[in-house]
Amino acid sequence: MRKAVVLLSGGLDSTTVLALVQATGYDCYALSFDYGQRHNFELEAAAAIAMQARVAAHKVIRLDLAAIGGSALTDPDISVPQADQSSEVATGIPLTYVPARNTVFLSLALGWAEVLGSQDIFIGVNAVDYSGYPDCRPKFIEAFERVANLATKAGVEGQKMTIHTPLIAMSKAEIIQTGTELGVEYGQTVSCYSADERGRACGRCDACHLRTIGFEQAGFPDPTSYLS
Amino acid sequence: MRKAVVLLSGGLDSTTVLALVQATGYDCYALSFDYGQRHNFELEAAAAIAMQARVAAHKVIRLDLAAIGGSALTDPDISVPQADQSSEVATGIPLTYVPARNTVFLSLALGWAEVLGSQDIFIGVNAVDYSGYPDCRPKFIEAFERVANLATKAGVEGQKMTIHTPLIAMSKAEIIQTGTELGVEYGQTVSCYSADERGRACGRCDACHLRTIGFEQAGFPDPTSYLS
Repeated sequence: MRKAVVLLSGGLDSTTVLALVQATGYDCYALSFDYGQRHNFELEAAAAIAMQARVAAHKVIRLDLAAIGGSALTDPDISVPQADQSSEVATGIPLTYVPARNTVFLSLALGWAEVLGSQDIFIGVNAVDYSGYPDCRPKFIEAFERVANLATKAGVEGQKMTIHTPLIAMSKAEIIQTGTELGVEYGQTVSCYSADERGRACGRCDACHLRTIGFEQAGFPDPTSYLS
Repeated sequence: MRKAVVLLSGGLDSTTVLALVQATGYDCYALSFDYGQRHNFELEAAAAIAMQARVAAHKVIRLDLAAIGGSALTDPDISVPQADQSSEVATGIPLTYVPARNTVFLSLALGWAEVLGSQDIFIGVNAVDYSGYPDCRPKFIEAFERVANLATKAGVEGQKMTIHTPLIAMSKAEIIQTGTELGVEYGQTVSCYSADERGRACGRCDACHLRTIGFEQAGFPDPTSYLS
């Protein structure tokens, strides 16, 4: 079986990606990051999801992105903003953007893929509900794929590394629909930027907002446990 | 003053880059990685060099590349190969190649640059003595620069991020000559992949081999302290 490295945050999107990749018949190597995120519970969710999915391996890499700062997700001095209820998502690049996060995560996925002899990396970025994150855009992914092919032994030896983004053109509702058909239990996943230590969601941040709307539009009951 | 992020390993090349960048009049932010390298002494060298150069800041990010494995530099089960005395450097990609290392390092430099408001990242890669590392080639750097401009707020807002590689076309002898003119004390730098806890070099690995030849060709005395 071909090996795939799957970035798994423990959120709704990456859990759907994992289910999709497993359905396609890859041997899945799930990769998570303990990067100083305030919503640390997602790592417990990722571990449970990876175990239940019986992945070939689940690796959690520690990496102190808080040392760099500059994001509401890693800096305790910057508050997680509440979703702007007047528009679908806030305009511009939000405070929850973590500088260069997807570049860093993809780089480490690339390193692991190279060691595993895998040529396929999957990431659950989404350009529809991408919330203004520059590193969720298709042209960013294309540029990174070029780096992946130039940076590695595999590339030098003529093998093609591919960065797969199966969710990139889907709405949140379509993602939920796809995952539900594949048996994903979304109650296990955590999207909230401010989830408490038991994984309960705040219901007020951008991530909660997009998730709630997604379930509404998909016509499925929202299994998220909210704080209020 | 413009801010520059300078990757500083504590080796000969990156120390020369730091001297060059400071001479150009940037405010320097030095970045090192504690990535599980066996030649950990280089971090002590980097700290001393950064302090002496009076950089604006020196950050050491911890990052467990050994968790990924696949390199003689991070995996205790893979021995550091001795230089092939019959050729200048071994052919192909050596065992000391760390999968995706420069991609990972540049990604984190990019994140820090973004937080600092810097548009200039400096890395001491070299395509002459590059020892077969795919991520030291000019086309890799060009591809990464494209990623840097697509991944970040700065790029989205029309500012240009630049990955500078001032040593890329220099021989080791030219690098040593340049640094010496700028007052670099190469006795402080550590290139050896197997340096001991006091920074003494093995004299036998590829890195030692290239360094020794560099001093010979530059016509300068080699200030390296060797084990044997």
